[in-house]
Amino acid sequence: MSQFSFGAGIWAFGQIVDRYAADGYGPARSTAEMLELAASVDGLDYLDINHPFVEDSTTAKSVAVQLNDLGLKARAVTPHIYTRQFARGAFTNPDPAVREAAKERVRAAVEVARVLDAGYVKFWPGQDGFDMPGQVDHAQMWDLTVDTVRELAAEHPDVQFAIEYKPKEPRVQITLGNAAKTLLAIAASGVDNVGIVLDFGHSLMAGESPAEALHLVHRHGKLVSAELNDNWRAWDDDLPVASVHLFETLEFLLALREIGWEQPVLLDQFPFREDPVAALSHSIRTIRWLDAVVDGADLAAVRDARRAQDALAVQHIWWAAVAEAGSYA
Amino acid sequence: MSQFSFGAGIWAFGQIVDRYAADGYGPARSTAEMLELAASVDGLDYLDINHPFVEDSTTAKSVAVQLNDLGLKARAVTPHIYTRQFARGAFTNPDPAVREAAKERVRAAVEVARVLDAGYVKFWPGQDGFDMPGQVDHAQMWDLTVDTVRELAAEHPDVQFAIEYKPKEPRVQITLGNAAKTLLAIAASGVDNVGIVLDFGHSLMAGESPAEALHLVHRHGKLVSAELNDNWRAWDDDLPVASVHLFETLEFLLALREIGWEQPVLLDQFPFREDPVAALSHSIRTIRWLDAVVDGADLAAVRDARRAQDALAVQHIWWAAVAEAGSYA
Amino acid sequence: MSQFSFGAGIWAFGQIVDRYAADGYGPARSTAEMLELAASVDGLDYLDINHPFVEDSTTAKSVAVQLNDLGLKARAVTPHIYTRQFARGAFTNPDPAVREAAKERVRAAVEVARVLDAGYVKFWPGQDGFDMPGQVDHAQMWDLTVDTVRELAAEHPDVQFAIEYKPKEPRVQITLGNAAKTLLAIAASGVDNVGIVLDFGHSLMAGESPAEALHLVHRHGKLVSAELNDNWRAWDDDLPVASVHLFETLEFLLALREIGWEQPVLLDQFPFREDPVAALSHSIRTIRWLDAVVDGADLAAVRDARRAQDALAVQHIWWAAVAEAGSYA
Amino acid sequence: MSQFSFGAGIWAFGQIVDRYAADGYGPARSTAEMLELAASVDGLDYLDINHPFVEDSTTAKSVAVQLNDLGLKARAVTPHIYTRQFARGAFTNPDPAVREAAKERVRAAVEVARVLDAGYVKFWPGQDGFDMPGQVDHAQMWDLTVDTVRELAAEHPDVQFAIEYKPKEPRVQITLGNAAKTLLAIAASGVDNVGIVLDFGHSLMAGESPAEALHLVHRHGKLVSAELNDNWRAWDDDLPVASVHLFETLEFLLALREIGWEQPVLLDQFPFREDPVAALSHSIRTIRWLDAVVDGADLAAVRDARRAQDALAVQHIWWAAVAEAGSYA
Repeated sequence: MSQFSFGAGIWAFGQIVDRYAADGYGPARSTAEMLELAASVDGLDYLDINHPFVEDSTTAKSVAVQLNDLGLKARAVTPHIYTRQFARGAFTNPDPAVREAAKERVRAAVEVARVLDAGYVKFWPGQDGFDMPGQVDHAQMWDLTVDTVRELAAEHPDVQFAIEYKPKEPRVQITLGNAAKTLLAIAASGVDNVGIVLDFGHSLMAGESPAEALHLVHRHGKLVSAELNDNWRAWDDDLPVASVHLFETLEFLLALREIGWEQPVLLDQFPFREDPVAALSHSIRTIRWLDAVVDGADLAAVRDARRAQDALAVQHIWWAAVAEAGSYA
Repeated sequence: MSQFSFGAGIWAFGQIVDRYAADGYGPARSTAEMLELAASVDGLDYLDINHPFVEDSTTAKSVAVQLNDLGLKARAVTPHIYTRQFARGAFTNPDPAVREAAKERVRAAVEVARVLDAGYVKFWPGQDGFDMPGQVDHAQMWDLTVDTVRELAAEHPDVQFAIEYKPKEPRVQITLGNAAKTLLAIAASGVDNVGIVLDFGHSLMAGESPAEALHLVHRHGKLVSAELNDNWRAWDDDLPVASVHLFETLEFLLALREIGWEQPVLLDQFPFREDPVAALSHSIRTIRWLDAVVDGADLAAVRDARRAQDALAVQHIWWAAVAEAGSYA
Repeated sequence: MSQFSFGAGIWAFGQIVDRYAADGYGPARSTAEMLELAASVDGLDYLDINHPFVEDSTTAKSVAVQLNDLGLKARAVTPHIYTRQFARGAFTNPDPAVREAAKERVRAAVEVARVLDAGYVKFWPGQDGFDMPGQVDHAQMWDLTVDTVRELAAEHPDVQFAIEYKPKEPRVQITLGNAAKTLLAIAASGVDNVGIVLDFGHSLMAGESPAEALHLVHRHGKLVSAELNDNWRAWDDDLPVASVHLFETLEFLLALREIGWEQPVLLDQFPFREDPVAALSHSIRTIRWLDAVVDGADLAAVRDARRAQDALAVQHIWWAAVAEAGSYA
Repeated sequence: MSQFSFGAGIWAFGQIVDRYAADGYGPARSTAEMLELAASVDGLDYLDINHPFVEDSTTAKSVAVQLNDLGLKARAVTPHIYTRQFARGAFTNPDPAVREAAKERVRAAVEVARVLDAGYVKFWPGQDGFDMPGQVDHAQMWDLTVDTVRELAAEHPDVQFAIEYKPKEPRVQITLGNAAKTLLAIAASGVDNVGIVLDFGHSLMAGESPAEALHLVHRHGKLVSAELNDNWRAWDDDLPVASVHLFETLEFLLALREIGWEQPVLLDQFPFREDPVAALSHSIRTIRWLDAVVDGADLAAVRDARRAQDALAVQHIWWAAVAEAGSYA
């Protein structure tokens, strides 16, 4: 049995669209329906919830009540600062009025987070960047990013914020694109209530080793949340956990132990063509089983083999542990 | 002045959505509005038109009238076989009823193409493929693809069909993902009225040299259409022409001359954050200027340098021609 | 116990250099030493052997004797047509004298293959392609490729040849870069004694699903050999089997069963920093264990799930089989 | 005429090998021959020189004399800490004796740099990293990296050191893989005489915008050197300048002006199949011409368009400037 508790981005339960299936990969769902689906995933206790809510009539209070009724908790609130209004950027939009609107969305999210008792408010500045070479003044983009993060964090010193980096999509190049650059931006902002959400898939896309990025962020004291999923490295496919990368996932689970992670592990999946309850249940089942693999592994031998940088020895230990982990439920 | 005439996918003028800006990157537009915008692009004479149309009330006849009024022509009709109903595949959907629905869409598109006097009906099977390793029976996927292409082409022997290949998106892996594989599928189908739409950006994504792919498809007698745009190689960014790749674009324009291309060059752009009329006008202006570069280049020297595989010499000639091409309007 | 027999490229046992460690990643070794190392790998019975040999004094006859003494067999002979002389191409070199030298190397390799009773002579035209956009006349490159393949195959109608495709390295772009393009080249050559060596890692690099490529090549009757290894998708890292991709490897092993593969599976590894005997033994151990996973999997359920294109169901079956496969030796 | 002076890595003039053309892409050359070739490149004034030299008999003094005779200057000395001895790492090698040997190489390079009056000693830890997922203890790797940088810099407080980051090759994953991570490592080392060599091609490989990375490094006061070349984004092809990316190169040249760059621009090319003098001369010619493009561009308009993040406007200005730049020599 895994030591981890689990959460998920609520978007997994909503209607997903893209530029081809603009009519949606599944039915439109109300907030209430999305919460009910989430509650039906075995082992899922936490949610990262977008705001504004799907319906104007939904309130933070009503969501809090429903979460409570369903036995769910809010882990985070993520303001929509990447929708149509922010297509050309939120924190770095060339129009000061749009930048102000983005800040307003964050402020509203903070209020929602207070009502929901969420652990953090997430910045996901996916439209902040550029599309074509030469398009922007990079120095200005950095200043706008850092200044806005500083301003919002300073305004709410009792609130934990966290930036989720990603190298691209929806913007062709996103300013906060990898772990180290985001750490530099946080340092430049000079505030101490902003950290990082490390998404396994975004880390793969950024050319990082996710476990290495986890250690780097942790070493700087900035790890606020960790999200799991998988992809083919080139794009944010948001697939079920370990559907592509076994060893990277095992290494990441071990890294979470090494840093003493006690918060939930969140799932960031977009089940375009799968039932969302099945897709998330599958990931939790897989994480539990892989966590049993870690339990059974000779971790002292792993440590020694890694210190010797002996790749074959490390792999041998993991294969042996995989083979001995017992039934995949 | 370029020797080429120009067309565009009508989608450039419509509302684009993605999974983040689900409320759209611009306003919703009617078919009539899209056609009017297209007509306002200097030099744009042809359209690749999606069917079903945006509104149920629009008919092929009404579109034909408006096209004529605006001085536009239909170059192609592209049936929507990648919308919600076809999220798990069109020609290869596991459900025979959905496969049949996809064929019905093609048949309807054929009728529209007859009314519009379009040059070809495009197959863009972007949902046909898979997402996770191991998901499908590859032999069956190939059979379904080839058999459906054969059936539809055999049903309409007087109609020209053309497959636009692409390696991924929306499906994580698309079955008809590069030029050579698509040529093999066409050969396997055994019909002679199916060819290829070569999209420059899809070719870059597939790891091809677009000019080389053009020659390969032409050599097999299967080039039906050529589309231009640009991207950063890893994703189908659908950016303006030559906004990233100068030499590849010059080489492609030269290749079009070498094969004696007399059909329109189509623009496949998604101007998420730009005015569509400006974005397409910009591409046409750039192609015309690059075509002037080709006009001015010492093509005999290019030929000799390429025969000698002398990369520095080829580049020198192109740079010299770029420098002498005259004003970029 | 795996149903497969195993072979390896002899280069795994030699001194590897690259442009940084130009003094080599390990000691220089004689042909005799390389063969002895190969013989010490548990389960390794076959070799793909480069010609010319390391030493001028080594003869096909002496190699045949040593192979026999060691209980090894030659599976293939691979002529060195990618060394210094062929840096600007072998079959497509702009200099006819170099093209002729490449053919002479192939002819010599044919004679060696006869003496060694090898199953095929491999074409690995890794220098045939280009480096910079615009460098070559693609139509000419294709003609030179096809014509040379035809000429060499026609000269030796009793010999099986096989082309190993790869998208890049050492050439920035290699002409025969993926499975489908290579099938087209073979078809164009019009000879029936040329097939394909499908290297798992090259297939990943080419953006293919290796199992799908295997089925495609097999369907065209052109599969001559299959090589296993692994990489990070972007480069030919030539790592041990399944050190990165579990499901792709399982799917590939299943595909080999599906097509009734009875020939050896070859390992194409470059153990830059590992002991070659350990690195290859590790791969064979892993393949055997993964083959036991396939043995234990509910293959009827896999078939049904794939026919339904149900990714979660497929993954569930594989995870369950992995968990039940028994001890990893 | 460009405002820049030019340098090059001396390796461009030596014999390049790789794992296929292990016998070298050109003739072996002595240090003296390499220097003579360098001197014959029009406009080349500086060299980044590897140490140990090719021959044991060559001394720093003799190199200094020859440089002076040829009118060349040493810009940097780069110790060979990535050759055979360091195949499993230099600063992070698991064997303390090898780590010590790497430090000795740096110390020797410092002495050479003093004799040659070079501007900096370069750390290029290309073997420091790992090959397979899970292989190393990432926290330990970071400590070893930071501690060694600190130790070497503290030992030589009057010497400028500079780290050249690169995401991969020769190691499959290199620890200091992008600009931001390297800035973090430098900050962690707590010394002030270590900066960064920003290589345009390495930056492309790392998924960065090179101009953005330049500004980021400059903002942190750590830019020691800038190297130009080009590649296809996925690998360090070390091609001539702007042979693939026009706008990124223009943007980079403009960024150098914006930060007031007064040091030489270095060329890091590996002309595998070209004459090195021709290949480097070609790059200098191209930079000079592109610098004339920048001279002629309406830079106030560029600034305004970038502030408005108007990609089409920026591209229009650049195309116009390209068209007006005058003759490419």
